[in-house]
Amino acid sequence: MSQYAAVRVFQRQTELRTAGGLSVRDITDEVAEAVRESGIEEGIACVYSPHTTCCVRVNEFESGFLEDFAELLRRLVPIQTYYAHDDWDKRTENICPEDMDVGNGHSHCMAMLLGTAGESIPVRDGEVSLGTWQRVLFIELDRERDRRWLVQVVGT
Amino acid sequence: MSQYAAVRVFQRQTELRTAGGLSVRDITDEVAEAVRESGIEEGIACVYSPHTTCCVRVNEFESGFLEDFAELLRRLVPIQTYYAHDDWDKRTENICPEDMDVGNGHSHCMAMLLGTAGESIPVRDGEVSLGTWQRVLFIELDRERDRRWLVQVVGT
Amino acid sequence: MSQYAAVRVFQRQTELRTAGGLSVRDITDEVAEAVRESGIEEGIACVYSPHTTCCVRVNEFESGFLEDFAELLRRLVPIQTYYAHDDWDKRTENICPEDMDVGNGHSHCMAMLLGTAGESIPVRDGEVSLGTWQRVLFIELDRERDRRWLVQVVGT
Repeated sequence: MSQYAAVRVFQRQTELRTAGGLSVRDITDEVAEAVRESGIEEGIACVYSPHTTCCVRVNEFESGFLEDFAELLRRLVPIQTYYAHDDWDKRTENICPEDMDVGNGHSHCMAMLLGTAGESIPVRDGEVSLGTWQRVLFIELDRERDRRWLVQVVGT
Repeated sequence: MSQYAAVRVFQRQTELRTAGGLSVRDITDEVAEAVRESGIEEGIACVYSPHTTCCVRVNEFESGFLEDFAELLRRLVPIQTYYAHDDWDKRTENICPEDMDVGNGHSHCMAMLLGTAGESIPVRDGEVSLGTWQRVLFIELDRERDRRWLVQVVGT
Repeated sequence: MSQYAAVRVFQRQTELRTAGGLSVRDITDEVAEAVRESGIEEGIACVYSPHTTCCVRVNEFESGFLEDFAELLRRLVPIQTYYAHDDWDKRTENICPEDMDVGNGHSHCMAMLLGTAGESIPVRDGEVSLGTWQRVLFIELDRERDRRWLVQVVGT
């Protein structure tokens, strides 16, 4: 299948308040709705977190698994340990007053370990090509915060 | 270099039977063939796994390394431990009968740790811009199963 | 917001010499400049490492955090351990003479654990949609080497 036409680009930004503490929000329905609104039938959807301590990931949304994964992350990247990022006697760059109360060095490390800020998903016949159990997840690795995510669709 | 033309979108789906147990399939040649078939000279190729316990990754395909990586993954995400995802006394969501015989909580955790479901690769002069040692790998994190992967190419 | 126009594809390659040893280069300004040069207002930018022991990631560029993350990576993927990839008594594939002096099995494992080779970032109003603290980082996981990265922009 190959198409040859004028291109369309669509973007939507969605705001949310997260619960903090490795909480996961299922944003699949909102992504699907944005793709429908875009009118794009064939292309790529890039779902993106513009934050350094959150990420967007595609996996199953099942409570047991999310509990298992939070436990794994906390084991690999312990919260109660020294982080130079949170050492205010030493740190001189990117001073963010609200981070001085509660450190988030572990959240940055988790985000880097998890990978990219977003996920790119093929769009076909006007739908994101998610598999049976795949859901689009917005993962908060830091405390309860105001956040946002973007979906950018490029195609025909 | 900048191009200004009508856009093309191309998709191909490929089915495969995996060997299970952290097996890795080199799908580079099939990706390259799909890009050639698309007729797209400049753009982005998104190679995507629509499964929650597989992923597509770009790295070297060398037996020793794949062995090292499987050992690392098994060390970080042990198979023989408790996973709430596999606790059928407790679990109530997304019941999948075939998962009741052999749990795959560890496979989901591995997939999340590894990152996104797919990889996006630049396409230039009709070829994916892979480096000398880069190969496109389809990684099975669960048991032997029927799987599929998508390649979506957007460009000119 | 939805656009309907002729597509543009832009690519730029940038060369660099890395410092080795989990060094991180902030390439945000160069990515932003490439997007401006592309003339693309709305689309997706794919920033890509064509190497198997480097990756491009989006996160904060703050010395303390980068130190924390390097320590985490070295803890999860120790350098001083056996890697079949570096076992020249056993290895027969992809022989690369310069790797025989200093093994890089751990660098490959780190790259796979970190995720994809690149990052895809939405472009809006002619700018990459990075959040306040987000920077585009080129991460060297191997020794000091000559490297390059690509940015591919597709849009209108």
